[in-house]
Formats: sequence, C-alpha cells, structure tokens
Amino acid sequence: MRRAPDADLIAVFTRREPSKVAALYPETRIVGAGEVEKYKDDIDVMIMCGGSASDLPVQTPALARLFNVVDSFDAHARIAEHFRNVDAAARPAGKTAIISAGWDPGLFSLNRLYADAVLRDGKTYSFWGRGVSQGHSDAVRRIEGVADARQYTVPVPESLEAVRNGENPELTPRTSHTRECYVVAKPGADKEKIEREIKAMPLYFADYDVTVNFISQKELDEKHAKLPHRGFVVRSGFTGEGNQNKQIIEYSLKLDSNPEFTGGVLAAFARAAYRLNCEGLTGCKTVLDVPPAKLSPKTGDGLFEFLL
Amino acid sequence: MRRAPDADLIAVFTRREPSKVAALYPETRIVGAGEVEKYKDDIDVMIMCGGSASDLPVQTPALARLFNVVDSFDAHARIAEHFRNVDAAARPAGKTAIISAGWDPGLFSLNRLYADAVLRDGKTYSFWGRGVSQGHSDAVRRIEGVADARQYTVPVPESLEAVRNGENPELTPRTSHTRECYVVAKPGADKEKIEREIKAMPLYFADYDVTVNFISQKELDEKHAKLPHRGFVVRSGFTGEGNQNKQIIEYSLKLDSNPEFTGGVLAAFARAAYRLNCEGLTGCKTVLDVPPAKLSPKTGDGLFEFLL
Repeated sequence: MRRAPDADLIAVFTRREPSKVAALYPETRIVGAGEVEKYKDDIDVMIMCGGSASDLPVQTPALARLFNVVDSFDAHARIAEHFRNVDAAARPAGKTAIISAGWDPGLFSLNRLYADAVLRDGKTYSFWGRGVSQGHSDAVRRIEGVADARQYTVPVPESLEAVRNGENPELTPRTSHTRECYVVAKPGADKEKIEREIKAMPLYFADYDVTVNFISQKELDEKHAKLPHRGFVVRSGFTGEGNQNKQIIEYSLKLDSNPEFTGGVLAAFARAAYRLNCEGLTGCKTVLDVPPAKLSPKTGDGLFEFLL
Repeated sequence: MRRAPDADLIAVFTRREPSKVAALYPETRIVGAGEVEKYKDDIDVMIMCGGSASDLPVQTPALARLFNVVDSFDAHARIAEHFRNVDAAARPAGKTAIISAGWDPGLFSLNRLYADAVLRDGKTYSFWGRGVSQGHSDAVRRIEGVADARQYTVPVPESLEAVRNGENPELTPRTSHTRECYVVAKPGADKEKIEREIKAMPLYFADYDVTVNFISQKELDEKHAKLPHRGFVVRSGFTGEGNQNKQIIEYSLKLDSNPEFTGGVLAAFARAAYRLNCEGLTGCKTVLDVPPAKLSPKTGDGLFEFLL
C-alpha cells in the first residue's frame, strides 16, 4: 500500500459489477464479492468498509470465518452484540478480528481508557465537531421533500471551554452540542414542514438546538462537499490531599477528511490483527486489547524511537 | 490504595531510618530497604520511586529479580540500555517489569506511536511546559554561589501555533523552547558570573534563549513551590491524492502537580505489570507493549463503556 511499506493491496471486493467500479489506482484488482472465498489463502487481513447499520453486522462475522478482519463498526449501542457475533465466527476458524477501530469508537476509546486509568478521580467528556455527521445527514435526507442535506455537529464553545478549565460542568446533549443543517428542498416542497420535522426527530435532533438553512444544490456541492471533522476527549481530574490539584488530559483531532483518516486507523489495526493472529491470539478483539506496538511498521529496537 | 480499589499498599521501603520517615497516612507501614527480600511473597508489584540518574539503573534490575516492578525511568538516551539490564534480571526470575512509565516517556510515547501508525505521512512534535524541569533546576543549583533555583521550560508560542496549524515548521531547540530561571544567590555571590555560567551550560542551556531572574528565598518559596507542568504531542500529517488533506492529532496535559500525575501513571502500569505476570508474560516491557485494557480497574464487559 502506498503509505504502508509492509503491506500489499491484493484486491478490492465489491457487490457491484466489478468492471463498472473505478479504482483509485489503475493496478488495483477489483473482484466481485461472490469470489471472496477463492482468496482465503492469499489475504492476511481484510479491511471491512461497509456501513454499521446493515452491512457490518452481517459482513464482519461472515468474513471472520475466512479471514483476519478489521472494521470500524460505530453503532455504539450495538457494539457488545457485534463483538459476540464476530467472536463466535472468528474463534472456531482460528481467525483474529478487531472491531470498532475508527476514531470514535477507536482512538477516542483508547484515550478515554488511558485517561480514566491514570486519573482515577475525575470526569471524561467527549465533544464532536465542528464536522459533518454522516448519520445525521442521512436522517435529514430521508425526510419527504428533501433532495439533499448536510448536517454539522458543533460543540458549544462555552461548555468545551469550561471543561478545559477543569470546571467539571454537568452537561446535557443541548449544552454540549448544537446541530446545523444545510438542506436542499425539492421543487414545491413545504420548507416549514421540513424544518419542523427535522427539529422534532427523536434522538437525532429533538434534544438539541438546531438551525436549518435552505440552500441550492449548487451551493451545497460547492461549499459542503468535503467531509471534515474534529473531536475532543477531555478528562479533568484531581489528585492530592483534598483533591487540591487539577490535572487535565486532552486529546483532539482536526481532520480535513474524516473517511481518509479513518482509513489510516483501519490500516494500522489491520497490521495488528495479522500480527496477533501470527501469535495465536484469535477471536474478536477491540482496540483496547491491542498492544500499541503491534500497530507500528517499526519493530524491535526501532520502537525505542517513540520513547525518546 | 485510596484511588485504586483493587490494590492494597503493603509497605513503603526507604533507605533512611524508617522511624524517621513521615508517612502520608498513619496506617502506612514504613520499612528499611534492607528488609525488602522478606516481603517477596507478599507484594504483587513494586513501584520504583528513585531518580533516573543513579537510583533506578541499579534499583530496578536489583528488585526485578524478586518482584514485578514498574518505574518511570526518564534518561532518554539510556532507555535501551536500562531495558536490557532490567530484562536480564526479570526474565530468569519469571518477573514482569515495565520501565519508563511516566508521562514522557510514557503517555507521550504512546501518543507518538499511535499517531505515527495511523498518519503515516507527517511530522510529530513534542513540546514541554510551561512547567518546572527538575533536572534543569538541579543543574542550576549545582553552580557555585547558588542557594536555590527553579527552572521553567516554556514552549515558543509561535512555534506551537505553527505546528497546530499544520505548517510543519523545521524547529531547533532555540525555536522550540525558552528557559526561565529563578535563582536565589548566596550572600556575596557574583550574580553576573552565575548568569554567564547558566547560559553557557552545554545541553541544558547553551542552545536556548535563557532568562535569569534573581529573587529572594522567600519569593521562591512563596511563588515557585509547586511543581506544575504542561506538555503537547502534535502530529501533523497528510492524506489523499497529492497530500491535499491536512490531519492533525494533538495530545496535551495540563498538570497542577507533575509528581502526583506521574504517580497515577505508575499505579496504572503497576496493575498491568501484575496482570501480565499472571498471564506468563515475563521480562522487561515498555508502555508500548502493554494492552491498554490491562491498565484499567474495569474488566470484561465493563470495558465496553470506553467504546460507547
């Protein structure tokens, strides 16, 4: 792979007609998903790129019977269930699977764990944005009369600031994030009704302050085509007699391209999945189980560089 | 331990006369270092608290023959040597040792590795401060005519800002950090000579812009008694065709008490050292080798909380 000197890209599998899929590089082999079993001795690890709603719950267990796999499953409430399904598939096959290896869940999960382990008394906060939430954008697009839409999640600046100052505020969804929608209405659609429906949508919007901006498809394509994102994990804790000393750990990401960054995380955990399998560590794992050194192309004494 | 429900403090070992050592809590048992071997069946893991210059290079290998151990050895240039000495002691004894488990080396090392693994093209920067460097403070105190001193390491704000903006500047020691010294001179000492000697000291000061402020012992005690510190690891990388997308990962600490925070890191890795030993993983390890889950008091399904 271009940025992973120790890996080769063997093939990209697709459910579409392979000849109609355009590869990023001309030398990439595009193969129909039905052929995947033929490759079971040629591929050390398979990177799952499906969606969390309906693809990965089926695909990751199915392919974990044949390959070491890694996915970025992010339906938070269903992670334990997904873990058990993938484990039941991978373990008897002697394969290693790492699930939920993106940035959240993924790198943010790691930072929540490390911060909680070293600062036992405190509170951990996660903020997302300003950035495009693909799930919320999809939810808006499913509303009648909507042609296209983009939803930005935005942290409430005062809340993020209070957390960074170690004030340990009690936050609700509304005081943590606001939501900005850019909506292209179909000709003749009732814009007021669309706005009401967005703002009333449970889980996605009802608990938040939401702004809805109607724009043209041209403006959406010009100004909102990219998929930037940001995010913050902050643990604000205390040590010492009477908790007199404030200690703050902050981890943050500022991403021009959320999907490309997630690809980088997946590629690193793919390396780890293969290495764990070589050591006989089979079954389903999460990012929390993986020794960090397994992610690096560096090995042995080369790893000391990170300690210097 | 007060903040670790799954651990008990068995004893504190001292090279001083135990009856003259004041414990933080009245119930803490203080024992002479000469008695340590008697405790070899009672202690699951020993936290080494000596200095990196002359204590730990001797103490960690010596005690790794008898106990699982963890230290925060931070003499960067000697880490590989320390690793080999500790490994040679721990491995034949069937013990597990984790070295260099503080914040740098330690949490910063972890973040350098994770960031390098997921963002393969880019540059990693570390900044320390504003905070008290105990090594540099000691170096100033060893100068003739100095009664007491405190040295603050301070990142150059423009350089930190450029790094955070993804400008990937080429930095030298001088453009990365400045150094502020607060010095109490002995009566009649030649202050100009002290200042010249500080600024000329190789490695510690010669490559930096240094300010020297002479103050009274009273002012030093009043204004500079605490040991706060800060630090930043920033990786600024690129993805996409032609590297058109900037991706920035930042990890930062804001600590009121550097030693108390380091204690929290050591306690978490102490838990991990014992658990690794229970699984038969013996010899010397670094923080890069430890599966993150081993640090947490949570276990099994309890760990899913960090993924949510």
